Amino acid sequence: MQKNEMHFTEHFDRFCSALPSGLLLVSLDEDGRPNAMTIGWATLGIIWRRPICAVLVRPSRYTYGCMEATGDFTVNVPTEELANEVALCGSKSGRDLDKFAECGFTATESSHVKSPGIAECVITYECSVVQKNDVVPEHFIPDIDDSFYASGDYHRVYFGEIKAAWAAEDI
Amino acid sequence: MQKNEMHFTEHFDRFCSALPSGLLLVSLDEDGRPNAMTIGWATLGIIWRRPICAVLVRPSRYTYGCMEATGDFTVNVPTEELANEVALCGSKSGRDLDKFAECGFTATESSHVKSPGIAECVITYECSVVQKNDVVPEHFIPDIDDSFYASGDYHRVYFGEIKAAWAAEDI
Repeated sequence: MQKNEMHFTEHFDRFCSALPSGLLLVSLDEDGRPNAMTIGWATLGIIWRRPICAVLVRPSRYTYGCMEATGDFTVNVPTEELANEVALCGSKSGRDLDKFAECGFTATESSHVKSPGIAECVITYECSVVQKNDVVPEHFIPDIDDSFYASGDYHRVYFGEIKAAWAAEDI
Repeated sequence: MQKNEMHFTEHFDRFCSALPSGLLLVSLDEDGRPNAMTIGWATLGIIWRRPICAVLVRPSRYTYGCMEATGDFTVNVPTEELANEVALCGSKSGRDLDKFAECGFTATESSHVKSPGIAECVITYECSVVQKNDVVPEHFIPDIDDSFYASGDYHRVYFGEIKAAWAAEDI
């Protein structure tokens, strides 16, 4: 899909409305192979005078090792037609299969980071990790701790500086 | 200023374009008195299936004690006409003066949180803290650590669930 560079604040509605069904977080594993994980949580804004996209990854995930190894990532907004692929990337682990191959995704070379984008998605944010920290179990309200962390596996927050953002021509 | 409830994704451009000159973070001190601090950093999005506004506060700040005491806050987007007030709230401490009185701000009762909004601002987000954690010094890229933390005082990140968002009718 042909994409043009955009300002990171554009299409925020599309970004947020797609989140509940899932965006695709791409990073590279230790062998340099791209891996995609479905995420329903992310924020955009400005921190440290830089445009920032923050994403959360549990330590148990294959993507966690990729993020730690690569230090950068892309966030990709899929179309509704990719619902099956988004479901697969949210239920299968990159430890067990090549999700790019399984989904028929085309990896696109990024302009500023090592992790590729996904050609079939309508928006791609290229992000370089500038800070990471972990959520603090005792600082959650009980509702959230009960709903999302019954088995622990507390998220690491990755603050990615948005080095470039790309949008398909027709959105 | 008359405000109507809006979806939190509306006016994201305005939110981001106002950030470099400053938004106003309001919380209550231990005596229940509202205090405003100018912030240039914040993000919006969805985490834990909730709309989230994340803000950063240094432990040395008067606002830090307010956030810890109150557990909620509002983020207010000022007009350009409030440049002097924004400058004051970014340079003076609530320890030394009543910034609401000094700026002539009108505190508006919030619908879902204890901290009030600022009537003179065009957008107000009401936020309840659902998680807080601290940035990790050793996880910064050197550029950021050198630029913003030469004297330490590393930020705490407050993740506020946006309980309501309000916008002036004419923006």
